[in-house]
Amino acid sequence: MGQAHKISDAIVKRLPAYYRYLGDLQTQGITRISSKELGARMGLTASQIRQDINCFGGFGQQGYGYHVAELKACIGDVLGLVRTYNMVVLGAGHMGQAVAQYDGFRHHGFCTTALFDPDTNLIGTKIAGLPVYSPQELSHYCRENTVNIGIIATPMHAAQTSCDALIACGVYAIWNFAPVDLVTPDSVAVSNVHLSDTLLVLAYHMQKNLHAELE
Amino acid sequence: MGQAHKISDAIVKRLPAYYRYLGDLQTQGITRISSKELGARMGLTASQIRQDINCFGGFGQQGYGYHVAELKACIGDVLGLVRTYNMVVLGAGHMGQAVAQYDGFRHHGFCTTALFDPDTNLIGTKIAGLPVYSPQELSHYCRENTVNIGIIATPMHAAQTSCDALIACGVYAIWNFAPVDLVTPDSVAVSNVHLSDTLLVLAYHMQKNLHAELE
Repeated sequence: MGQAHKISDAIVKRLPAYYRYLGDLQTQGITRISSKELGARMGLTASQIRQDINCFGGFGQQGYGYHVAELKACIGDVLGLVRTYNMVVLGAGHMGQAVAQYDGFRHHGFCTTALFDPDTNLIGTKIAGLPVYSPQELSHYCRENTVNIGIIATPMHAAQTSCDALIACGVYAIWNFAPVDLVTPDSVAVSNVHLSDTLLVLAYHMQKNLHAELE
Repeated sequence: MGQAHKISDAIVKRLPAYYRYLGDLQTQGITRISSKELGARMGLTASQIRQDINCFGGFGQQGYGYHVAELKACIGDVLGLVRTYNMVVLGAGHMGQAVAQYDGFRHHGFCTTALFDPDTNLIGTKIAGLPVYSPQELSHYCRENTVNIGIIATPMHAAQTSCDALIACGVYAIWNFAPVDLVTPDSVAVSNVHLSDTLLVLAYHMQKNLHAELE
């Protein structure tokens, strides 16, 4: 998997979108697509599409385009979607519960198994069929169960402590919903959900539409 | 604002991250930054930073770098953050409540004013101090109040209907949390929150770290 090391962060960030669009094409029964058509759907140029796909060893055929299923499988492979991942959620407030119940990633092999929250009203209950434990039980739980990813959905002030607790339990991947920059060792993979970013992009498009109307 | 039309989608998507990083620099008391340093923080090359910033009429000075506050103000201007936006949330389940209570964007001028949900147990109550109304009251509410952005946090099957209702009420910007591709007229700005995308990027980095360890 030496190739994985050469992929730039910018391309890595585009991979999920490729994966999503190719899945949509499959659903629509489309088996082949040109870089131009794929680019038009994704808001990229044909040349950028070809550059990206070349980067992870993808394969188009001049005049025939890309084979949708093969390309999707190849990207899934690069993304590591050939296995399953067990996840726990720290923080069973609204965000934690929303993420635990969100069904947009279960079919990719990501499975939430438990929530942790200090609220004694929640401990011992079930949320979306999943048990809620005290944070003090985290290390025991991680010894008894495989936990690949820790989801941080705590209030801001508890995010770093939660992150440290996960790492101490040997969890080396953090999906962070708190609007905080976590401090972690290099060996820990962190992906931050910056909700505001998509909102700012929306503001941009709103005013662009407004200006277009006024012209 | 003719310049706004020339900015590519790829750059628009990076603008919120620029805005965020520049805000962090301000908090740290840093007033100037070179394209190289900014690039290192953002995972971009110095040349890409310069190209991006040139695109929206930014101004660096050879050898002096960018003035952090000026550049941030310029990007805020391009993003349309010079005004306030009123938002309503359709769907007062966990995701809707989480978004209504999320405090990561209020300081950018985005203000949630009400939630709408068909659940009769919720109608008439308050969530995070905000009133919950029946969806049937949406059009009346939109006539009486300024609503700039509609947030869709409904179950998948209700997302398109909710979107249509917002557009019928004259709301031309949709922030969509449902894992559904909405069908909208060109005059409507839509920004989708694809939660799974950040999770897939995390999976990629996890396996990259794993391979690095094995080498």
